[in-house]
Amino acid sequence: MNTQTPQPMTHLPTQSYESLFSASIEQINQALERALDKRAYDTSSQANGLWEAMRYGTLDGGKRIRSILALEACKACGGDIESILPTACAIEMVHAQSLIHDDLPCMDNDDMRRGKPSVHKAFGESTAVLAGDALIALAFGLIAKETQLRGKATPQHLLSVIGDFSDVTSVQGLVNGQFVDILYEGQPFTPDILEYIHTFKTGALFRFSLRAGAKLAGADAIVVDRFTQLGEKLGLAFQIVDDLLDIDSTTETLGKTAGKDQLQEKATYPAFFGVEASRQQVEQLSQDALALLEETAGMPPGYDSTNLKTLVAFIANRLH
Amino acid sequence: MNTQTPQPMTHLPTQSYESLFSASIEQINQALERALDKRAYDTSSQANGLWEAMRYGTLDGGKRIRSILALEACKACGGDIESILPTACAIEMVHAQSLIHDDLPCMDNDDMRRGKPSVHKAFGESTAVLAGDALIALAFGLIAKETQLRGKATPQHLLSVIGDFSDVTSVQGLVNGQFVDILYEGQPFTPDILEYIHTFKTGALFRFSLRAGAKLAGADAIVVDRFTQLGEKLGLAFQIVDDLLDIDSTTETLGKTAGKDQLQEKATYPAFFGVEASRQQVEQLSQDALALLEETAGMPPGYDSTNLKTLVAFIANRLH
Repeated sequence: MNTQTPQPMTHLPTQSYESLFSASIEQINQALERALDKRAYDTSSQANGLWEAMRYGTLDGGKRIRSILALEACKACGGDIESILPTACAIEMVHAQSLIHDDLPCMDNDDMRRGKPSVHKAFGESTAVLAGDALIALAFGLIAKETQLRGKATPQHLLSVIGDFSDVTSVQGLVNGQFVDILYEGQPFTPDILEYIHTFKTGALFRFSLRAGAKLAGADAIVVDRFTQLGEKLGLAFQIVDDLLDIDSTTETLGKTAGKDQLQEKATYPAFFGVEASRQQVEQLSQDALALLEETAGMPPGYDSTNLKTLVAFIANRLH
Repeated sequence: MNTQTPQPMTHLPTQSYESLFSASIEQINQALERALDKRAYDTSSQANGLWEAMRYGTLDGGKRIRSILALEACKACGGDIESILPTACAIEMVHAQSLIHDDLPCMDNDDMRRGKPSVHKAFGESTAVLAGDALIALAFGLIAKETQLRGKATPQHLLSVIGDFSDVTSVQGLVNGQFVDILYEGQPFTPDILEYIHTFKTGALFRFSLRAGAKLAGADAIVVDRFTQLGEKLGLAFQIVDDLLDIDSTTETLGKTAGKDQLQEKATYPAFFGVEASRQQVEQLSQDALALLEETAGMPPGYDSTNLKTLVAFIANRLH
């Protein structure tokens, strides 16, 4: 862990995340709406309940940070939005799927999600399992069928993105992280286990988002590698900020006396390393991310990292 | 329904299915063993239990009829085994996944599968859900990463196979079929609903197996279409034979008095159409399948449908 006090972060823009990226969020939401429109598929009214559950769990979905990162990574490397939009939607679909299955009674048993009943509460358990299964498979199909290859991007790039997507959605990503998370439920954590869960459960999809954006812009291997590292930095920063926000909420809710024991039971970054060191780590990760973006300057033709720099600031500054 | 008495079926070979296709079954089982060897992935010992569940549900798996059909379709069209083997494994992985999730308490609630405890009984429900999720995603990665393209097969053929695989494993296949099956649990069936469930739950993967085999051999569109129809015929024949076998078992177990009411409650093909008409339908489907194989003679270079004809006979004659 880096304990050196980093330089102050890039200043936040005066506009909010939602207003700066509203056009992109709208593009993603519209593309998801099309991808989950049953009229586009050879299916029958018998399966209407399945479609409703898939749409319910996916369409009404928050900030879309992962897919926005994919879009902006592709654009930063000179790529076209049509090259990355299906992959961006696929990312949101497997993110939604992971929440639907994680909420099941046999998993984390959460009845509420984003302020409304979770999918199994609204549609039943069997439909929640099947809706999740269908979302995984549909996500892969969307990437394979809808991606428009432009410029230097080839079918091999696309196959490689599908291979990466398989890794992060299975044993080298989401599923692995959730498995270990459940394995340690009620057990004593170590920092290693915490990092393992974060790396697989949250980090993998961030890593994929940035990497896929660069690949589908047809970027060279060195740029793809830098963007992969960028995704790792941002995924970890996002998760530590989440932990810090969680503590703030807990402290507010339970009052000062809950304090440190409460933190340690939660097995978060601040619980292990302290709030200040965790904040410093977020700052350091942000600096590393900005440095990676600077190092890439001029490498892909038409490179413009303005929006990605803003996103680094937004991810780091959710805590301020 | 065709009621004309068809010509007698192709005679069964004197050898059994298992002995005739033992080399291919062994190739598939070895390839599955490699695909589910955790040492090939960037994972840790923390996830060992997840890997064990995935292997338990997949590796010890029956006749491998779907993947054998894919292999033989590819070979019949002059393709190479390395072109189809990863897809053949992917087919077995999603077939296993569908059984793992269908057996869950919130679905068909089956404690036993292939004479041993089902995955959720052996490893717990949350692991069964996650093992299934991982198998779907791994299957797509296997096709994208491991397929060797030979001859006329291109990356576009491969992307098209991945798109088809998405369809049959989600809303136009397995998941849709299982959803409607559960929807009608304890409800009165109609022949239309029965056909719908069969087409999606069983037929789709047979259809995909034959179609993918032809595509990855680089076969022309007309051949791919014929093999797609062939898959539809064989999928339906396989399911009707399954229904007929089920009746025979039921009759044996429960005695004559259980008779017709028992059949109707089961909502099978013979329950709606009678045993004899169902047998005739299997014969007709087999004749149609053989005709499709004949029509294709000479179209792909090196075409040899001997093994596929034998497979048609095996599928039809499980009832004799």
